[in-house]
Parts: sequence; structure tokens; C-alpha cells
Amino acid sequence: MIIGVIGNSKCLKDIYDVSYMVGKEIALSGNILINGGRGGVMEASAKGAHDVGGLVIGVLPWERSDANPYIKIPIVTGIGECRNIVIVKSSDAIIAIDGSYGTLSEIAFALKFNVPIVGINTWDLKSYSGICSHIPKIEDPKEAVKLAIKLSKKDGEMKNW
Amino acid sequence: MIIGVIGNSKCLKDIYDVSYMVGKEIALSGNILINGGRGGVMEASAKGAHDVGGLVIGVLPWERSDANPYIKIPIVTGIGECRNIVIVKSSDAIIAIDGSYGTLSEIAFALKFNVPIVGINTWDLKSYSGICSHIPKIEDPKEAVKLAIKLSKKDGEMKNW
Amino acid sequence: MIIGVIGNSKCLKDIYDVSYMVGKEIALSGNILINGGRGGVMEASAKGAHDVGGLVIGVLPWERSDANPYIKIPIVTGIGECRNIVIVKSSDAIIAIDGSYGTLSEIAFALKFNVPIVGINTWDLKSYSGICSHIPKIEDPKEAVKLAIKLSKKDGEMKNW
Amino acid sequence: MIIGVIGNSKCLKDIYDVSYMVGKEIALSGNILINGGRGGVMEASAKGAHDVGGLVIGVLPWERSDANPYIKIPIVTGIGECRNIVIVKSSDAIIAIDGSYGTLSEIAFALKFNVPIVGINTWDLKSYSGICSHIPKIEDPKEAVKLAIKLSKKDGEMKNW
Repeated sequence: MIIGVIGNSKCLKDIYDVSYMVGKEIALSGNILINGGRGGVMEASAKGAHDVGGLVIGVLPWERSDANPYIKIPIVTGIGECRNIVIVKSSDAIIAIDGSYGTLSEIAFALKFNVPIVGINTWDLKSYSGICSHIPKIEDPKEAVKLAIKLSKKDGEMKNW
Repeated sequence: MIIGVIGNSKCLKDIYDVSYMVGKEIALSGNILINGGRGGVMEASAKGAHDVGGLVIGVLPWERSDANPYIKIPIVTGIGECRNIVIVKSSDAIIAIDGSYGTLSEIAFALKFNVPIVGINTWDLKSYSGICSHIPKIEDPKEAVKLAIKLSKKDGEMKNW
Repeated sequence: MIIGVIGNSKCLKDIYDVSYMVGKEIALSGNILINGGRGGVMEASAKGAHDVGGLVIGVLPWERSDANPYIKIPIVTGIGECRNIVIVKSSDAIIAIDGSYGTLSEIAFALKFNVPIVGINTWDLKSYSGICSHIPKIEDPKEAVKLAIKLSKKDGEMKNW
Repeated sequence: MIIGVIGNSKCLKDIYDVSYMVGKEIALSGNILINGGRGGVMEASAKGAHDVGGLVIGVLPWERSDANPYIKIPIVTGIGECRNIVIVKSSDAIIAIDGSYGTLSEIAFALKFNVPIVGINTWDLKSYSGICSHIPKIEDPKEAVKLAIKLSKKDGEMKNW
């Protein structure tokens, strides 16, 4: 399975550490990590997966030189921030860690395309018409990855993938 | 100026009526309306502008046949939901009316790209790290359009556009 | 109808003059001009339409500041060279003038999506498997616009648009 | 390195066989294959790489279900034919095999973005202003892959990648 990790390109040390653990757990569980390929949460999770021999795909906005050093497979899109939708659509499940407006756009697309999503210290959302956003919040990285895999498998069975 | 209106492709009558008024006010103020070109809030605002002789641009996801009958200039993108970013980047200011996940993605991009945004009964957002989302909420359509134009002008001066 | 003009962002004077005439003829025929919004053939055709009061849409790769001064409606895509596909899919017919590799990509998409195309001093194409590219070549700007409109109408009838 | 293979989604047996050999040689040379993930030339080259244990990335236009069975890493873009630019920008070198208009658009983008390209029975191009298209033509699959790797390495040295 391909698990997406979304979050800011700049982050504080505690968020960096959590992201590292999330990446590591994704690789240890035998899955592929996909993210936006840049700094902050993306770099930390990539490094976490990389350090235990995992496969990391970075979906880059413009150029290959945007990639952090832990990206094994750089996908160079040339479509700027629209690459957010590529990350979401390529993921079997997503873990959102903290995050700013770019991450918010990815959460929105994940909800739109029914990609299961787990949140660690991320956005709270409430629509006027009461659509429920269904983002389970979990603080422990190991548990977050476990839940993402579980939600994804369930989804996978439904889709016969 | 080009004012964007974002909202769901299906909506209840009260939201339809508000959207119609918003489109009408945009045209009466001498500005161009841009939206996603489909049903619901998009159709209602397009009809409102159209009925008083306004110019309406519809940025369509796939095909020209997706357009509602009030779109004067159909921009056919072929990039699906990524067209949301085109609507946002082409707007001097945006009015968000109610809305589901697609609208949420557009709000996120507007915040990211510093496009001024006014909300009518739309999403409430709160990030973990306390980024303030700055969406002024207004119920009256006329007042919402006035504020959008005002915010846009201020932005325009800064950008020397 | 919306007529697309494609060509290089830098060009020699004779190509600039032909492009100007093409833009002018599109506007005089009561149609809307769409192009990539930048310099060279795009600027010349936009100026030609602008000088006789025509409506010009510029589909820009990144930012509004990319636009030449004759663009009335800037569509800001943020998707870089992928905006070429937006120009093609939004056109009822296309006139290709000279052009380099970007223009070649637009010609390819026009052929793929069955958008009628007329060429002025443009690419010669020959596929290995003998697909015929059907680009009528015309030197006179007036005649090129006439033919584009005619092909477009025919296409329009078929599509019942 | 990541080597792209471009060509039609439907093809005759001789083209299928050549594409299979090309995919096989890419994998045997220790490189990653990227293509559009669908049928014809894409399926054949993916199968060739897959059958000798190679890694195959498929950059899909819409949905994961578009993928042929030999794609190991499906990248789901949701941007339709614009995904062609993602394939090109993600490749260190490209091999074009026969091909119709979609392939022509990819060749155009490769030339535009200076991605080295080798052709097997593919398009002949001639621009009016005499831009030289520099596509070396080679019939033998093994030799084509060798040349693509060589051109790519040269390019890589220049770019310090």
C-alpha cells in the first residue's frame, strides 16, 4: 500500500520528531510512503522511512531540485500546488500532521475523494451545513499509522484493489 | 475586477437565492464574475449576473457541456478538480457561500495565495498551530460583495495592479 | 465563438505582423480571441484584437504579471506549461503561427481533442504509422481566420453546440 | 535513473514486441521505468520490465483502475492528459516508440524541457523556422536503451544530478 503524509514544509522540532516516527512506522509496516517531497514534515517523514530502508516517493511541484535528500523516487509534476491533488489521489490512506493552508487543501481533497485520513494535531473543520468531516485524531505516531493502514484496508476491500 | 464565487454544485433554495443575489450585485458593481461553471451556487450566481447583463466566466473541469446556461465564457480546463486552483488564482477576491469539500479546497488555496475572501454561511476552520484564517463572515449578499470589492481594491493597490 | 491563436513568445517582425492581422480579423469577425497571454505571437494577436475593440482572454502559466498589456481577461492557472491544454480545450478552432516546442504541444493536443486547426508557416508533422495530421496551411491572415471560423462552425454543427 | 517510455495505448504486435524489449532492457540495466500506465506500448514496456523484476511507475490520467497489471507504483494524477507533462518532467531520458498525438505532445514537452529523447519508428518533425528537433532514431531496442542512458548520463553530469 501507499500511505501519504501531509504537513507543512517548515515545522518545529516536536512536529519534526512525530513526522519522523510516522515515516519510520510506515516503512516498518512494509508500505510505501508518498509525500510532497520538500522540507519540514515531508523531509522528516521521508527520513524516517529512509533510515529503515523504506521506499519514498516525492511528488514535487516544479523541479527535481526541490526534493529533500531522502526521496528515492522523485515525481516532477510541473503543475505547482496542483500537485497536492496527485499526492491525495495516489494514497491508499493519509496521515495529516499539523499543517497550514496547503495541508488544508489536501485534507479537503482527501475528504472529497474518500481517501481515509488520520490526523495528528491537525485542522479542526466545521461546515455550515453540518457535513461531518470524519478525521479521527490520534497523538501516537505508531497508533496513527496502524489506524491509517486499517482504514485503508477496509477501503481496499470495498474497492477490490 | 474579477470576483470569484465558490460553493456547492447542489444547494437548497435559500442558498440558491443568496447566490443569485451575490452574482447580481457583482455584475451591477461593474465587475466580472468567475466561478466553476456548474450547478447549484455556481448556476445561481451566474444567473444573477447574467440577468442584469453581466459577464460570467465558467472554469470547467472537463468538457464544455458541463457548463450551466448562464456561462458566457467557458474555460475548458481538462484537469478536473485541479481547476479549483485556476478559479482562485484568477480572482481579485472571492465570496464563499456554504460549500462542501471542493469549496473547502478553494478556501484553502485562497488563504495560501493571499486572495481576499468573504464568507456567507461557510466553513469554520481552526488549525492546531493557531494560524488565523481571516475569513470575515457576512450574511447580506450586498454587503458581502461590497466588502469583497473593498478588500480586493486594497490588495490591488498593494500589488500595483 | 472563441478562436485560439498559438505561437512563440518571441518572434521576428514578419511573424509579429501576421499575428497582429490574425488577432484583428478574429475581433472584426465578432469572435473572442484566446491565447497564452504572453509575448511574441500572443502579444501581437492580442494587440490586433484589442486595437479594434475585441475581447482577449489570456491563459497564463503562473502569475497575472505574466500578461501582456492587451489581455482583457487574465486567467491565471498556476499549472505552468500544462496551461497549453486549457487554451486548446477552450478554443472552437485554432490558428497556429510559426512556433516552437510549446506550440508543437498545443498542435498535438488540438489534433488529439479534434479541435479544428489552421496553420500559418507552422510545423510539418509525419508519424511513422501514417496518421494524417490534417493541418491546412494558409499564408493570408484574413483567409486563415475565415477558414478557422468555417471549420469551427462545421465542428459546432456536428457537436450540436 | 528513471527512463520514460512513451507510445500509443493501442498498438500492433511488432510495436508491442519492441516495447516489451525496451522495458526489459531498462530493467536489466538497473534503471526504473516510468510511463503512462495504460495499454499498448505502455503495457508492453511495463510487462518487459516486470518480467525481469524491474520497478515500474505508471502515471495515470484519472483513476487507479486505469493501470495495466504490470504497474508497481501507480501515481494517480486526476489531471487527464496533462499527466503527459508529469511523465516527461520525471524522466532522465525518454524513448518514444511509434505513437499518435498524445505521444507527439510528450515529444514536444521533452524537447521543450531538454529531456534527452531517442525515437524508435516515431514522428518526423520540421518547424518552419528551422528549429532542429534532435531526435536520434534507432531501430534496435537494446541500442535505443543504451543511447538513452548515455544521453541521460551526459545530461546528468551537466546538471550535477
